Amino acid sequence: MTPPDGTAPDAYAKTDRSRIRRNNVRARYDREAVHGVLDAGLMCHVAYVFDGQPYVTSTAYWRSGAYVYWHGSSASRMIRRVGVGVPVCFSVALLDGVVLARSGFHHSFNYRSVVAYGTAEEIEDTDEKLHALEAFTERLVPGRWAELRAPTEQEMKATAVMRMELREVAAKIRQGPPSDDAEDMDAPVWAGVLPTHRAFGRPEADPAMRQGIREPDYLKHIRFD
Amino acid sequence: MTPPDGTAPDAYAKTDRSRIRRNNVRARYDREAVHGVLDAGLMCHVAYVFDGQPYVTSTAYWRSGAYVYWHGSSASRMIRRVGVGVPVCFSVALLDGVVLARSGFHHSFNYRSVVAYGTAEEIEDTDEKLHALEAFTERLVPGRWAELRAPTEQEMKATAVMRMELREVAAKIRQGPPSDDAEDMDAPVWAGVLPTHRAFGRPEADPAMRQGIREPDYLKHIRFD
Repeated sequence: MTPPDGTAPDAYAKTDRSRIRRNNVRARYDREAVHGVLDAGLMCHVAYVFDGQPYVTSTAYWRSGAYVYWHGSSASRMIRRVGVGVPVCFSVALLDGVVLARSGFHHSFNYRSVVAYGTAEEIEDTDEKLHALEAFTERLVPGRWAELRAPTEQEMKATAVMRMELREVAAKIRQGPPSDDAEDMDAPVWAGVLPTHRAFGRPEADPAMRQGIREPDYLKHIRFD
Repeated sequence: MTPPDGTAPDAYAKTDRSRIRRNNVRARYDREAVHGVLDAGLMCHVAYVFDGQPYVTSTAYWRSGAYVYWHGSSASRMIRRVGVGVPVCFSVALLDGVVLARSGFHHSFNYRSVVAYGTAEEIEDTDEKLHALEAFTERLVPGRWAELRAPTEQEMKATAVMRMELREVAAKIRQGPPSDDAEDMDAPVWAGVLPTHRAFGRPEADPAMRQGIREPDYLKHIRFD
C-alpha cells in the first residue's frame, strides 16, 4: 500500500510563524531546498508544549512526499502528547562549517536548517505503518529491509509512527566565505571556513554475531571518510 | 572579569520534567556525563512557547561551569521572547552511529543527548558579555580571539548573549552493539554498528583574503578526517 504522501507544493507557506526575519537572504521556502535539507539529515528535534512547558525530543526521522515521519515507543511521553494533535515545531539543523571572519562579530556557522510548524498524527493503519517503517529502514541502509524478519504483531503495537504534513515550512541556509565589513577586509588575520561534515567509519560487526556472515554489499556503498 | 558560572553539582536534579522514562538505563544525571555531551556539541536547539505555540531555534552554544550560553541578534524573535524569562527547553543531540540489529524493531541510533529545562537570562554587563564571547570563540578555535580586533560598541549592542543555569538536566546515551532479542541472535543477518562522527575538512581560505597570510597554527591542531 502506498501511503497518502500527498504532493508537495513548489513552495511552502510563508506564514507569520514560519517566515524568517533575521538574515532573510538565507531563507528558502521552495520544495527543492526544504526537501534537500530534510533528506540530508538523520536526527530531528520535535518540540511541543505540555502544561505551558516546552519539551523537545530528538529522534530519527524521514521524509516521504509532503510528510515527515518519526517513530517512538507507543508508551513514550512524546508520542502520547504529540499524538493528540497539539501544535508541533519540527526542526532539523545540519552544521557545514565554522566561518572564521576578520571580526569576532561576523564569525558564523555554515549550516542548513529546516523548521516546520503543524500538527502530527499517529499512523493507525498497520499496512501503512509497515510501509513507513520499511521506508525508514531503506532510507538509512538501502537493501536492509529485505534481509530482516517481518515485525511481530507485538512489535508493531509497541511502535508508534507519527506523520506531520509539511505546510508552514522554511529552510535557512548559510554557505560560503565570511561576510566581513568593508573596513575589515585588509585585516591581517586568516579568514575562511573550516568545513565540517558527517562521516561514517568502518562498520563494526557485533562480536556476538554468528559465524560466517559476510559484511553485506549495501554497506560497501556508503562512503567512509 | 570571571563570569558567575557557579559550581556545577555532582549530579543534576531529576525532576518530573527532566527524569527519563523510556530506556532509562541510558539516562545519566551526573556532571561528567552531562558536561561531556555539552562540550562535544556545537549546535543546540532552544525551544520556547509563544502564544501557545512551540518554537525552536537552532544555534551555536557553549558551556562554562554550570551554565550554557548562546547568542543571537538583539533584535531576533528568539532573544526577545526567551529573554523575558519564559520556560526554555535546551537540547543537544549528537549522532554516533546507526545500529543495525537482527530485527527491524531493534534498529537504533547510537547517540549522546542532553535536555535541560529552565529559564534563560540575557547578560547585561558588558565585561561579562565580552568574556562570554571570548570563551565562545576560543572554544570553537583556541587561539583565535587574540588575533581579532576588539568588538565595537555597536557590535556589542547588536549581539545578545543568553545564559541558562543547568539545574534540571538529563543526558541520554546509547553506545555499543545492537540489543537483539535472544531468539533472533542466530538470524542470518549482519549485525553491528555503522559509526558516524563529525569530521573537519581542510580549511578553505576566503578568496578575498589579502595576500601573504599564512594558515594559522591553531588550525593545524584540528584533526582532519
